[in-house]
Amino acid sequence: MADTSKLTDCKTKSTMVSVDEALQIALSVAQRLPPVTVPLLDSLGKVLAEDIRAPDPLPPYPASVKDGYAVIAADGPGEYSVIAEARAGNDGVGVIVTPGTVAYVTTGGPIPDGADAVVQVEDTEQIENGSVESKRVKILVQTSKGVDIRPVGCDIEQDALVLKSGERVGASEIGLLATMGVMMVKVYPTPTIGVLSTGDELVEPTTKFLSRGKIRDSNRAMILAAAVQQQCKVLDLGIARDDEEELERILDSALSAGIDILLTSGGVSMGDKDFVKPLLAKRGTVYFSKVFMKPGKPLTFAEINLEPAESIMRKKILAFGLPGNPVSCQVCFDLFVVPTIRHLAGWGKTHLFRVHAHLQQPIKTNSDRPEFHRAIIRWEVNNGSGNPGFVAESTGHQRSSRLLSMKAANALLELPVTGSIISAGTAVSAIIVSELSSTAICSSSLLSDSTSAFKGSSSQEIIADESQNVEVRVAVLTVSDTVASGAGPDRSVVILLAVLSVGTSNMGTLEESWGWGCERKGGQKEPELMVQSQPHMGVNGSLTLNMEKTKFGHIQVAGSPSNTGPSESLQPSPLESQPPGKLLGVI
Amino acid sequence: MADTSKLTDCKTKSTMVSVDEALQIALSVAQRLPPVTVPLLDSLGKVLAEDIRAPDPLPPYPASVKDGYAVIAADGPGEYSVIAEARAGNDGVGVIVTPGTVAYVTTGGPIPDGADAVVQVEDTEQIENGSVESKRVKILVQTSKGVDIRPVGCDIEQDALVLKSGERVGASEIGLLATMGVMMVKVYPTPTIGVLSTGDELVEPTTKFLSRGKIRDSNRAMILAAAVQQQCKVLDLGIARDDEEELERILDSALSAGIDILLTSGGVSMGDKDFVKPLLAKRGTVYFSKVFMKPGKPLTFAEINLEPAESIMRKKILAFGLPGNPVSCQVCFDLFVVPTIRHLAGWGKTHLFRVHAHLQQPIKTNSDRPEFHRAIIRWEVNNGSGNPGFVAESTGHQRSSRLLSMKAANALLELPVTGSIISAGTAVSAIIVSELSSTAICSSSLLSDSTSAFKGSSSQEIIADESQNVEVRVAVLTVSDTVASGAGPDRSVVILLAVLSVGTSNMGTLEESWGWGCERKGGQKEPELMVQSQPHMGVNGSLTLNMEKTKFGHIQVAGSPSNTGPSESLQPSPLESQPPGKLLGVI
Repeated sequence: MADTSKLTDCKTKSTMVSVDEALQIALSVAQRLPPVTVPLLDSLGKVLAEDIRAPDPLPPYPASVKDGYAVIAADGPGEYSVIAEARAGNDGVGVIVTPGTVAYVTTGGPIPDGADAVVQVEDTEQIENGSVESKRVKILVQTSKGVDIRPVGCDIEQDALVLKSGERVGASEIGLLATMGVMMVKVYPTPTIGVLSTGDELVEPTTKFLSRGKIRDSNRAMILAAAVQQQCKVLDLGIARDDEEELERILDSALSAGIDILLTSGGVSMGDKDFVKPLLAKRGTVYFSKVFMKPGKPLTFAEINLEPAESIMRKKILAFGLPGNPVSCQVCFDLFVVPTIRHLAGWGKTHLFRVHAHLQQPIKTNSDRPEFHRAIIRWEVNNGSGNPGFVAESTGHQRSSRLLSMKAANALLELPVTGSIISAGTAVSAIIVSELSSTAICSSSLLSDSTSAFKGSSSQEIIADESQNVEVRVAVLTVSDTVASGAGPDRSVVILLAVLSVGTSNMGTLEESWGWGCERKGGQKEPELMVQSQPHMGVNGSLTLNMEKTKFGHIQVAGSPSNTGPSESLQPSPLESQPPGKLLGVI
Repeated sequence: MADTSKLTDCKTKSTMVSVDEALQIALSVAQRLPPVTVPLLDSLGKVLAEDIRAPDPLPPYPASVKDGYAVIAADGPGEYSVIAEARAGNDGVGVIVTPGTVAYVTTGGPIPDGADAVVQVEDTEQIENGSVESKRVKILVQTSKGVDIRPVGCDIEQDALVLKSGERVGASEIGLLATMGVMMVKVYPTPTIGVLSTGDELVEPTTKFLSRGKIRDSNRAMILAAAVQQQCKVLDLGIARDDEEELERILDSALSAGIDILLTSGGVSMGDKDFVKPLLAKRGTVYFSKVFMKPGKPLTFAEINLEPAESIMRKKILAFGLPGNPVSCQVCFDLFVVPTIRHLAGWGKTHLFRVHAHLQQPIKTNSDRPEFHRAIIRWEVNNGSGNPGFVAESTGHQRSSRLLSMKAANALLELPVTGSIISAGTAVSAIIVSELSSTAICSSSLLSDSTSAFKGSSSQEIIADESQNVEVRVAVLTVSDTVASGAGPDRSVVILLAVLSVGTSNMGTLEESWGWGCERKGGQKEPELMVQSQPHMGVNGSLTLNMEKTKFGHIQVAGSPSNTGPSESLQPSPLESQPPGKLLGVI
């Protein structure tokens, strides 16, 4: 009946905001939560809401840097009588080092009065025949005044501003707070987030057998986990049917539970039973309900006004109506909800971390909306341009229902609306959405993972560029003392193997091999490439691949930066003849 | 008496192992913990100990991609009778679309039998005069078979291997598990870690007034926090006096509490009351007790054998005797304990994440041991070499008692043992020790923070290189649509100001300025530099600084990568004449 009559007012393109505008709106509406005072360890990861000054200097007394002997520097080397011990933990009061005497000190212990330097125990010699009463030691070196003594306040001056309001508390900051005796810390709390899924098609993930037309709800668990990763307290609001009254009832109970942010998923598309947006409009202000992006277009953002009875502290609650497609849902969380959480939690800068990454494969961009293309980025000694840098590998088909495209993804590539092909090797902006330090650890492992997990999935949107039908040489240069000395295996081989097996179902034949042992084995479908390196530093070889059928016009050869010290210069090895294709990289 | 007699056997250099050896030893001794089965959300961040296959295809039925009408594509545009609705959540059973009819469908809803395409609602027109019984719609476009329909299994095929044993569970993986109905997940648990501080000089951080010779214990809180950051369960073992029996009593109670890793700090140096190492040797095997590194030399690693009565499950417990100096303690945790935790927690690759970063200042390396220099790295559009990349800023004086050198640090620079100066702009290996995505957000804020917090602290070890007494030009190129359009301020100015005020107490006079408005103000001690940019894209100017007295031969001008889209090419602007010094960077 009145079924589709509401749809028309959503059609106007004018309601669509850009990603930047959407984020700006959300951040301007969002308000920092009032500070709370928490026990020291609970402040971890939170933003300070107070300046912290040092109540006393560190060290609070002149302290020894070494285990050894407190001496008068001018005394010089020679045999001395050990008058006392000034250990860490002793007060050292009353001990006075006079010319001709020394005192035993331990690391961190107080320097006795009179002494002006410390000689470490390694530079002394015990005199074994000394009696208990008259212990003696031989000082072997000449020292000078102040050596191996930390003066009062040299690490932290008394009253120094050590931590500032607005700084984020990590493990080291916890250490600094403990040093200063701060056991209760004033910080901005992280928000409490309620997560609700909507849709008649959804059943609980516990459902064993799906009846026709039903799917298990994945968004709720995913977004609850994502909010936990952002250190938020979470409230699972369950699944709401596509029913106006049920939705409103759940909303009311969520609001009275004291949430700061409401996240719904589904129900914000163009269907006639999408009740989320109308409900948000009824209970507050909808700021936008469409964003010019892919995925994530039907993102809705609103502020809900609370009745005075519902909450004494808060008057307003933020609500994101996330799209129902799981990928769109997660991408919108990363791009909009994360910065909003940070803003509420007192972060001065809520920006997501962006780097540049070189595309491993050509990617066709969308001609319709800017795309946030899911990718795995990793650090390479050669990003394809001859410099170290990030390389981005697409997670395959980017259909917004395909949650597999988010699997292991640690970055969203920001692709422009050109509808054209960005060729392999091009640098694009990449938003880091997962912790780099705990992902993307080893390029070879990631590559082989992705080869098997996403096999056959990269053929639809990721298409070859004009560098097809070109012969490409791969130069291999191993720089490793371990390999050179024969003490360890050359992992380059493993890595190269992993790289070359990406997309090899279409890789052409190996035309030629020379140098120090390149051999190719196996059938047409899953060719194996064997490369044997010589255990000698700086040795290099090359092999030529016919890239006729491969999807990769440009192969990034993975490197292992951990093998190379900063002093070792990594340069592509000179080839014996000019390569007809592109020089690909350096291991 | 027998006080210092034990010291001699620690003197032999032969017991010192390299960082790589030490890590290899720890990882070879460490054993993966036995898997446990946990509720879905508890698997977040953990490593899967089982393969997960899809029990059913996704979608389990042909599903609509849009809200709209399921049609027979061959029917073409025209007016049609709406026979039924196939909403998401309906089973759609019994609905058959025949030529001349269409059915209303919602996103994710099942496609009725007979239909072979979906026309989105935007491409249709309601026919308003249709009665309730005979609703009609006008299809405006020609579609083709399969359009806007997700066939069965197109996102996940039935029985596909979706997640593999060894993969780490993030929010998206939680979503995938929920989709597949996996509510109990077999994962490797993270270890339980006991943390103990040792030393007579230590008092609880709660201590308000320090008596002479005492300092507050900072290591325990810091390491507890660091272990929590690694998702470990922690056990606070308090402070042990420098007393053999007390230490052993605490060890016993810790072991019976079921810890997997014991972390002590202090008591592993060369003092005669360093009882940790002897106790570990007595109760198990000490694998190494000195590592060739700075800081962190006195790191001890051991395996403790448990009596059968102490634990049924475990036979061995790992123990790290961390150095007492807070910086050494944290660095050893980052370099050795984190990979060990990962190994126990089932990670296939435990490596820390390494990148290359260009030094912002010259750094003098240690001539004695390889140094892990604490730094703040951030991403710049120009890392100084003309390419985007990481730039590393030292946190100042690297004394191992100075915990401030860890404050805000997100990387450890791996510096070789050369005793020489690595000049600014050189790329070094940087181990990322803190989450990049949540730190180092804005270069300008970090720079100004460090300027004020660490002022005057950078003069001792960070010294000038041979590029002193050289005139250096700073080229400023602003690439910003916002600035160009006049819509926003040019933050380049702020950033440049912040950069130039680092170490400016020794900065020489500004010799000349030209271009679009460079002005220097202020006294000798704290010179202010004012640079006004013109709000126009691509405009550039330069100014010359007499670097005679500055400690920085090479200034990295900070950039703001978030301002630049991937399509904008950032290159150093051509200078009007050849610079006599070095071209420094691009904002």
